[in-house]
Amino acid sequence: MSIESNPHLNNPKTLEVMSRVLKANDTEAAANRACFEQMGLLAINLMSGPGSGKTTLLEATAKAADFRFGVIEGDLETERDADRLRAVGVRAYQIVTGTSCHLNAKMVQKAINPLGLDELDVLFVENVGNLVCPASHELGTHLNVVLLSTPEGDDKVLKYPVMFRKADLVLVTKVDLAEHFDFDVQKVRREVQQLRPDTPTIALSAKTGEGIEQWLAFIAQQRNGA
Amino acid sequence: MSIESNPHLNNPKTLEVMSRVLKANDTEAAANRACFEQMGLLAINLMSGPGSGKTTLLEATAKAADFRFGVIEGDLETERDADRLRAVGVRAYQIVTGTSCHLNAKMVQKAINPLGLDELDVLFVENVGNLVCPASHELGTHLNVVLLSTPEGDDKVLKYPVMFRKADLVLVTKVDLAEHFDFDVQKVRREVQQLRPDTPTIALSAKTGEGIEQWLAFIAQQRNGA
Repeated sequence: MSIESNPHLNNPKTLEVMSRVLKANDTEAAANRACFEQMGLLAINLMSGPGSGKTTLLEATAKAADFRFGVIEGDLETERDADRLRAVGVRAYQIVTGTSCHLNAKMVQKAINPLGLDELDVLFVENVGNLVCPASHELGTHLNVVLLSTPEGDDKVLKYPVMFRKADLVLVTKVDLAEHFDFDVQKVRREVQQLRPDTPTIALSAKTGEGIEQWLAFIAQQRNGA
Repeated sequence: MSIESNPHLNNPKTLEVMSRVLKANDTEAAANRACFEQMGLLAINLMSGPGSGKTTLLEATAKAADFRFGVIEGDLETERDADRLRAVGVRAYQIVTGTSCHLNAKMVQKAINPLGLDELDVLFVENVGNLVCPASHELGTHLNVVLLSTPEGDDKVLKYPVMFRKADLVLVTKVDLAEHFDFDVQKVRREVQQLRPDTPTIALSAKTGEGIEQWLAFIAQQRNGA
């Protein structure tokens, strides 16, 4: 085994530039946060690998929620996810990132006006499908919710710790298929708590409806606390 | 819709540093390639999102292949994937990338000696589970094989075009579940060819064995052509 990082990133000039980029992002994230709070809005950053069911979760949320929400969608290409949400009556704004593997605070900032946040209670930001990079870029949201779907396997928490360490809530999605994929929800729950104690895990299925009530209760609790 | 890239990356100094990093990687990738050719080895870079079944494919390949192969494993953390392959008799070397979302040529170069390539016919490099970043970093391998599993959804080709444009072969994995996930293999085949004509798509299932023969035939053909 070899423990590595990008050797070129040991170059002091590269490190300096990267650190400046991250600092500028943090400043813009703080401005976003101030704006969300001004509007009494709870903002939630949804992160996961590709195809874990972020858009499907939001479709299910639209059917069951008693609060008004909007969505900022991040994808490398296509407006498909925003279109899916508009089809169920959700206000959605699509950001196309091109080659960028994550959203950043500036991109989110640009979506604020077009979305019309003042008429919303909750804002979801659906990040680019990627279980690594989005974890390192603050957007100004209040909470990070990380999705892990049962077909991806129950070994992913300790394999992608950078992401799971940032999670305020972990959602195990497609839990109706847990048995088929030999997916152990309790193991995931334990490993999440090992990385970050007190982080809850909710197992849910947009297909059967299992866990949706708990998910909505989590949001209600956060809105009351916020 | 808004089409974006990271605004900080428009800074000329940042661009210059990034370009230098990529150029240095290309030089190291070329050196890896020369080394693989010296040894008469076919080197294949396996890329996909998390949990698409890269390690499972290699386990299935180990059972059916008539060639000798080794594997360089890339993960942010843990040695689990290398352990799984060693358990089925495959020579595997684990690279732990820490926070890096992709392997680079230098990391692969360091694994060459410990693996003992001269006794192998094929080298697989299992990249970090990520459908974005690994596409932009050459490793010196001859071929890029991109996996897309049916639970991820058949909309991923056009949503992650940077990756699929690099594919010499696309493998649709877990195809035994295509119906359950309403996954249209023909649509994926068409969209792959739309991005990069002549790229074949093979649908397979490590569970049922479907497509494994075609996968081995593809490798045999490439070895003869190489």
